[in-house]
Amino acid sequence: MNSVSQRTIERLSLYRRRLMIELAEMDYIFSHQLAKISNSTAAQVRRDLMHLGYAGVPRKGYKIKDLIRCISQFLDPAKIENVVIVGVGNLGKALLTFFTGRRPKLSLVACFDIDENKVGTDIAGVPCFHLNEMPQKIKELKVNIGVISSTENATKAISEMMIAAGIKSIINFTCFPLNIADSENVFLEQIDITASFEKAAYFTKLNLKK
Amino acid sequence: MNSVSQRTIERLSLYRRRLMIELAEMDYIFSHQLAKISNSTAAQVRRDLMHLGYAGVPRKGYKIKDLIRCISQFLDPAKIENVVIVGVGNLGKALLTFFTGRRPKLSLVACFDIDENKVGTDIAGVPCFHLNEMPQKIKELKVNIGVISSTENATKAISEMMIAAGIKSIINFTCFPLNIADSENVFLEQIDITASFEKAAYFTKLNLKK
Repeated sequence: MNSVSQRTIERLSLYRRRLMIELAEMDYIFSHQLAKISNSTAAQVRRDLMHLGYAGVPRKGYKIKDLIRCISQFLDPAKIENVVIVGVGNLGKALLTFFTGRRPKLSLVACFDIDENKVGTDIAGVPCFHLNEMPQKIKELKVNIGVISSTENATKAISEMMIAAGIKSIINFTCFPLNIADSENVFLEQIDITASFEKAAYFTKLNLKK
Repeated sequence: MNSVSQRTIERLSLYRRRLMIELAEMDYIFSHQLAKISNSTAAQVRRDLMHLGYAGVPRKGYKIKDLIRCISQFLDPAKIENVVIVGVGNLGKALLTFFTGRRPKLSLVACFDIDENKVGTDIAGVPCFHLNEMPQKIKELKVNIGVISSTENATKAISEMMIAAGIKSIINFTCFPLNIADSENVFLEQIDITASFEKAAYFTKLNLKK
């Protein structure tokens, strides 16, 4: 499998979601139309879609239904991937809510916390276990994707526990930035929502002075 | 006010949160220590802190309490900024949950939807109004920051309504990327959580083949 950049994957993910909206209205789409609704260029769209090995129909463009299917084949796991979340504070609960009714190919199977009031309960329909049980659960449920939304200082230790247990991708929503060695072969995505809100507050102050 | 890059603001936001955790343990911190816990370098930390006009104490480093105060003065709005959210589906509800008990300088004052079952109710303690009422509410409540988490295709129209009503910053959580002209003087932050999960799924597939 050729190595494809993260930006390409982000764009393919975006194309698919835009196409699913367009599908209600039309059957075919040209690269310049897809570019327009996804903030890209026609040349970029064509380069990205080349990875899929799907060619459009002359003078009609891409058949939207086929294009969605090809992107899904390329992006999605062959079988459902189990996902776990560590840390069920407000952020963790927000992510559990976000997941509700989404991602047919990703299944949120467990969450972990150290708060005894949460351990043993169901949170947004997902069973909550003690953090100590995480390594065993990851192996038992064959989990490859781990989300960290702990508010405490434990991010690094949690990521190490996850990697040792066999996790292949980590999405880190905490304020603690992680470094993972390339040799670990673990995909790392870091999303700092708090920083986004603080940036908005700062640039608002700046824009108000203009 | 000098123009400071978005990356610098992100780092200052991160430094502050890391320092608040360290504060429980110690009084002073050196730039190399702050660099280590925030994935930066000592030189970068010193360059970033120069914007604050705060110098450390020779041989002791920065006084953590003073540094937090200086970063707060620099980053935070002088008075509380009101924030609104448009679109209260699962993502919008997740953001409302995320906000609970956070950001003392940001106050979530209203949310908007077109679903008649939501309009007129309180969602996570925040009153929900019909989208049509947004321009008036933004003016009435002097709102400068708008969050878009609509799942529909209305992102562009919503952003235009927001800007016309006087919004200075938009945080866009939808899959519809926005373009805002520089001349509008509106800060735009786009966060695509779905793309992050889809990227994780794709690179997991790749890592499993290695």
